Amino acid sequence: MDSKKPNRRGFLKGGAAAAGLAAGALQPAKAQKPASQWSEKGTNKEIIAYGERSRFVTSVRAPVAERDSPDAFGLMFHVLTPLQDSVGSITPSSLHYVATHRGSYVPEIDPKEHRLMIHGMVDRPLIFTMDELKRLPYVTRVHFIECIGNRSKPTHKTVQETHGMTSCSEWTGVLLSVLLKEAGVQNGASWIVAEGAEEIKGASSVPLGKAMDDCLVCYGQNGEAVRPQQGFPLRLIVPGFEGIFQTKYLRRIKVVDRYYMTYNDYGHINPDPKVSALGNQIGPKSVITFPSGGQKLSGAGFYEISGLAWSGAGAIRKVEVSTDGGKSWKDAELRTPAYPMAHTRFGLHWNWDGKACELLSRCTDELGTLQPTRAESAKYFDRPLDANFRVPGADNSVQSWKVSSDGSVHNGLA
Amino acid sequence: MDSKKPNRRGFLKGGAAAAGLAAGALQPAKAQKPASQWSEKGTNKEIIAYGERSRFVTSVRAPVAERDSPDAFGLMFHVLTPLQDSVGSITPSSLHYVATHRGSYVPEIDPKEHRLMIHGMVDRPLIFTMDELKRLPYVTRVHFIECIGNRSKPTHKTVQETHGMTSCSEWTGVLLSVLLKEAGVQNGASWIVAEGAEEIKGASSVPLGKAMDDCLVCYGQNGEAVRPQQGFPLRLIVPGFEGIFQTKYLRRIKVVDRYYMTYNDYGHINPDPKVSALGNQIGPKSVITFPSGGQKLSGAGFYEISGLAWSGAGAIRKVEVSTDGGKSWKDAELRTPAYPMAHTRFGLHWNWDGKACELLSRCTDELGTLQPTRAESAKYFDRPLDANFRVPGADNSVQSWKVSSDGSVHNGLA
Repeated sequence: MDSKKPNRRGFLKGGAAAAGLAAGALQPAKAQKPASQWSEKGTNKEIIAYGERSRFVTSVRAPVAERDSPDAFGLMFHVLTPLQDSVGSITPSSLHYVATHRGSYVPEIDPKEHRLMIHGMVDRPLIFTMDELKRLPYVTRVHFIECIGNRSKPTHKTVQETHGMTSCSEWTGVLLSVLLKEAGVQNGASWIVAEGAEEIKGASSVPLGKAMDDCLVCYGQNGEAVRPQQGFPLRLIVPGFEGIFQTKYLRRIKVVDRYYMTYNDYGHINPDPKVSALGNQIGPKSVITFPSGGQKLSGAGFYEISGLAWSGAGAIRKVEVSTDGGKSWKDAELRTPAYPMAHTRFGLHWNWDGKACELLSRCTDELGTLQPTRAESAKYFDRPLDANFRVPGADNSVQSWKVSSDGSVHNGLA
Repeated sequence: MDSKKPNRRGFLKGGAAAAGLAAGALQPAKAQKPASQWSEKGTNKEIIAYGERSRFVTSVRAPVAERDSPDAFGLMFHVLTPLQDSVGSITPSSLHYVATHRGSYVPEIDPKEHRLMIHGMVDRPLIFTMDELKRLPYVTRVHFIECIGNRSKPTHKTVQETHGMTSCSEWTGVLLSVLLKEAGVQNGASWIVAEGAEEIKGASSVPLGKAMDDCLVCYGQNGEAVRPQQGFPLRLIVPGFEGIFQTKYLRRIKVVDRYYMTYNDYGHINPDPKVSALGNQIGPKSVITFPSGGQKLSGAGFYEISGLAWSGAGAIRKVEVSTDGGKSWKDAELRTPAYPMAHTRFGLHWNWDGKACELLSRCTDELGTLQPTRAESAKYFDRPLDANFRVPGADNSVQSWKVSSDGSVHNGLA
């Protein structure tokens, strides 16, 4: 058949993508419905106001299996981004992961009533309304957020389960340094404590150097207001630091002269400010989102291996992919701009021979740090893998996906 | 009052932003509701699946006043992006403008049933399923779309009305050149015709050179599937060309040896293929989104002038802003990366003295083309402004916003 002949680019060469491709009459697209179908989910007025996705698109977030259930919210509320369906670098706001341990999980805040106070060791304590903040110089930057609990376990079947507690947005807001300079930081100050407005007053301590460097007080996310589950109306973004530092419902920043332990330190209490400051930066990390656990290849042939890479230390410089379990590595292409502390999409052309194989990815960030293997990661923390084969502490280790000869894909840890 | 004192950065210096700022006790954030409030719009399961925006965020699209009404859809369906509320460079998919003149405005297509055919002057006609397309090499690029009908009129009060028929997304898909190379374009071919699957079979002719350069066959928009109102499951993106070329519900691409006039040429029928090819590229264009018509400044002081710039010919190189009706110009800062054929956010610090003034922006693209004044734009088309003071043909002229001493902002054309 003509359509299967090798050609200049050869993407379809010998591959199943060409199967079934032939010259022929195109059937009229089925399932075309008259416009009235669009009233299903709302009135015409609602459809005009704010568009929806197709009812055929069913990609959704899922709760962390071992912790939450949709019907039983307690103190914790964790939902995971469906990375297996992701494209590009931006996570749709509706699919951004959520993790909170702070009592009531999503307060409903009227932005007209919300205030941000800057106080503590400053010359001029200040209180800002949302309107006042929006008058100040702003920046827009793409940054990921990742929960420190984002880790792969043998029981995890999909990339949503192994890596779904990271997402990436285009954030807009005021540099925290602008606000701190307005307030006038006093000599001797060395940390800030950021506090949210929710019931339990989630708070995190951030070194002053980081606060003055690139932290953002954000009111915008992906072109509109920050979503309630992401901290509406105001969220502190601490680029590259673990999720719990990205204080939601931000209402107060106190400039202080020492590291303050807060409720949010439950997971990594350490009285040494240096450890506390540096232990919370997300290491270089990458994962293949296609093909990944639970997906199935439809026979040998051409595929694009696709994935995401990110680092808390800066921009991604290189991503390598292995299709033979780590014996050999090829450089992947970076398919979206490699911004500092942002998800970067990578891709690699791949002709699958139909045999069982193991897929891995590893990245290197702009500091030259290479993403560790699972064994190296455990060694770094000077502890063995725990009883659940989890990496102790933060897990930025290489993820393995095993492809069976029937095309099914499984977590390499299982 | 301490908080009004000038300081190092001086953003608040003498400005109303400082009014009301003072050291003091922060009131607990009001309107905090228990978690059960979140059941308002759906079950917990729905909230987990796909998050929503705050009920306090009410920015919505609006129909084109002079053409449509929410309750009376006829052959046309135009809804405008609320640019006055925009931040950053990406338009939320739910707020992307929609314009269609093609009978049934939003067909409901099952992606499993959808096919794309490449045929005409090719060696190997091909038909792709959606799954097959997704196996091919992909790219992710940020591009704006703009309707040629996006024009400012004296009756328009807001930037949503004057400029709301442009939006910008992160698009993901296969380069059309990959598909055409697979099919093997024959000698003598010079144009393609792209056809959609909706009832009226909207079609557009694109020069082969453009088709082989940077056109994208997109299944992804802003990290998820293309939205139905934007062409789900497949849209042709012809970067920089006017909106009608961005064929929705793409089902067929025919390679041909001449310019084909189609239904979509109603607005600019011209039998000369050179005119047809080149007359459809969006000129360098910019607009201030804050402060803009209908908004109100709350007194003299510091503000950030913010806006968007874009060009169909490439990346934005420079944006200038005038606060004195064009007597003098200052370079604005580009606040998002200047991608080719993409919205680029610009900003400029501004201390408003409280007097009436006129705000303008103008941009220059990478070809060195300067956005024209309204008078120049009319001259270019060798026709005077029409009876409605509209620029004939495409309108990429400089937009004026007049600020009154009471802080209210009005369309400079009115």
